[in-house]
Amino acid sequence: MQLSKLDDISAFCRDLAKGDSAAADSAAARQQVLTKPPGSLGRLEELAIWLARWQGRAKPRLDRVAVNVFAGNHGVAARGVSAYPAEVTVQMVANFSAGGAAINQLAKLARAELNVEAIELDRPTRDFTTASAMDTDEFLHAFDIGVRSVPADCDLLAVGEMGIANTTVGATLCAALLGGSAERWAGRGTGVDDAGLSRKRAAITAALAFHRGILADPLRAAAALGGRELAAIAGAVLAARSRRIPVLLDGFVATSAVLPLARVAPDALDHCRAGHVSTEAGHRALLEALRLDPLLDLGMRLGEASGAVTAILLLRAALACHNGMASFAEAGVSNRG
Amino acid sequence: MQLSKLDDISAFCRDLAKGDSAAADSAAARQQVLTKPPGSLGRLEELAIWLARWQGRAKPRLDRVAVNVFAGNHGVAARGVSAYPAEVTVQMVANFSAGGAAINQLAKLARAELNVEAIELDRPTRDFTTASAMDTDEFLHAFDIGVRSVPADCDLLAVGEMGIANTTVGATLCAALLGGSAERWAGRGTGVDDAGLSRKRAAITAALAFHRGILADPLRAAAALGGRELAAIAGAVLAARSRRIPVLLDGFVATSAVLPLARVAPDALDHCRAGHVSTEAGHRALLEALRLDPLLDLGMRLGEASGAVTAILLLRAALACHNGMASFAEAGVSNRG
Repeated sequence: MQLSKLDDISAFCRDLAKGDSAAADSAAARQQVLTKPPGSLGRLEELAIWLARWQGRAKPRLDRVAVNVFAGNHGVAARGVSAYPAEVTVQMVANFSAGGAAINQLAKLARAELNVEAIELDRPTRDFTTASAMDTDEFLHAFDIGVRSVPADCDLLAVGEMGIANTTVGATLCAALLGGSAERWAGRGTGVDDAGLSRKRAAITAALAFHRGILADPLRAAAALGGRELAAIAGAVLAARSRRIPVLLDGFVATSAVLPLARVAPDALDHCRAGHVSTEAGHRALLEALRLDPLLDLGMRLGEASGAVTAILLLRAALACHNGMASFAEAGVSNRG
Repeated sequence: MQLSKLDDISAFCRDLAKGDSAAADSAAARQQVLTKPPGSLGRLEELAIWLARWQGRAKPRLDRVAVNVFAGNHGVAARGVSAYPAEVTVQMVANFSAGGAAINQLAKLARAELNVEAIELDRPTRDFTTASAMDTDEFLHAFDIGVRSVPADCDLLAVGEMGIANTTVGATLCAALLGGSAERWAGRGTGVDDAGLSRKRAAITAALAFHRGILADPLRAAAALGGRELAAIAGAVLAARSRRIPVLLDGFVATSAVLPLARVAPDALDHCRAGHVSTEAGHRALLEALRLDPLLDLGMRLGEASGAVTAILLLRAALACHNGMASFAEAGVSNRG
């Protein structure tokens, strides 16, 4: 993917790789003969067929699973929109390296490799209430980090983020691209108090007013209102699409990061599933707008890809059944009359 | 647990083991200092604390996990209430032994040992539309099989069932003990057609009328309207309680099996969590009646403990975080101001 201007992304989105219908049909046919009433494994069946479609294999595999977590810092953090100080972003990246965070434990359990990309943490984006968060080159640079982060041979990609103040960024992108006020999209993030939530709403409202001229252009909005980690997530998800790698999205911020892609091309997220719905205020509405039905609803709101990686466990369950079960004929079980 | 009459079960239910509040408090305190915003792991936090309470350990473990699946046959199957012939029960038990069923794959993935107890499959219960399904001795015998099935040293028990026609049995128990008509509680089970669903409703309605004199007594109803595999599940869940072993319930039938215990003692299921909510018609209402909030909602409806065992994966995720994460102090991460 050569990226020198925003239109290069748009052009790519107009020529997206398609899934393998034959592999999906073959997987669906297999589900019909396994020793269970048809459909009785519910979404575990749908997930096996979805993996078959994108991997191009009637019996999909999850041998190499990549979890790519991108970290960025945000100028708007200075406006007091988060419960935590901005230095926590770099501290948590160190915690990821040391193996102490939730995502380390979850990735190990899910047998997934964790790749953390800290993107210019010493250079926060500009405060988007009074400037563009990133110019085009900065945005494309971060996007390209995401593109290049995806292992070519992985069977599944999960994406997530870390960045103090980035639920403010995600909420602003949602308001910009889906409509609705700051009140609709701003939640408490890591747990901001009432005063902080007021500041957060004010920052979002100010940003929407300042950038009102470009809100109709999803990629310009992603640069002006977004963040480096969000741009990288979008890049990784688009690169996965080009290699037909299925993707699990994490929570509100990770999903808002790919919203611009869906606004450029409605089928841009066909290779994605939502790992979970978080308790962050706008996530459920965002998933509904993207027609993504989350796999888990556990009241999580941590980010770091934690919800997506928990959902990897469900994909493993889906494939264990799909690949390992006996058919009615093999098991000598009577099928329905 | 000595069982020679139904009142022995009632007496046991009036003197239930309590959880370990100190261990639960210690686990809850630990969750407050791990490197994440408090509460941001949602139910994964609650599950770790629940396991701590019942295991009596601030850092719970899942070294030995037992999945006990009980199978039984039902006289009412002769009334054409299922999409599958009654011989499928014994055939599926053979499939469990051969390792070909969904539950075999899921138990292996969840690192759980699968114990299948086929209870007198050659001797179906009597057709409960015209007789008691079991007399007291038959019920207590099946209940005791469940009691004795629980490994004394297991860290978690998951319970499930196999039995053609047993959603008819579960629906009848729900109607008997919670009120409401056959229409409310009867679902399509393994996928019965409209005519079969009508026969199922008619059987339930007939059973409720025939047994109307004993519906107020939960244990007598469990014998007259139940099934051997349901009685065994109730026995296993009560035995687990006596050993403070936490339990994951499976779907509609497994949950209806423990409904009589909850009608005898409202706190009888405090050591239980619902692994999932199935698409079987009455399951959600049954869970609400029992105030059980299911961990998964994946459109599953297979039984065999498949939903409960999939939920074991979430317990492993909960404990991976609870036991493995660094604290703010250990990681040198700034806590909220």
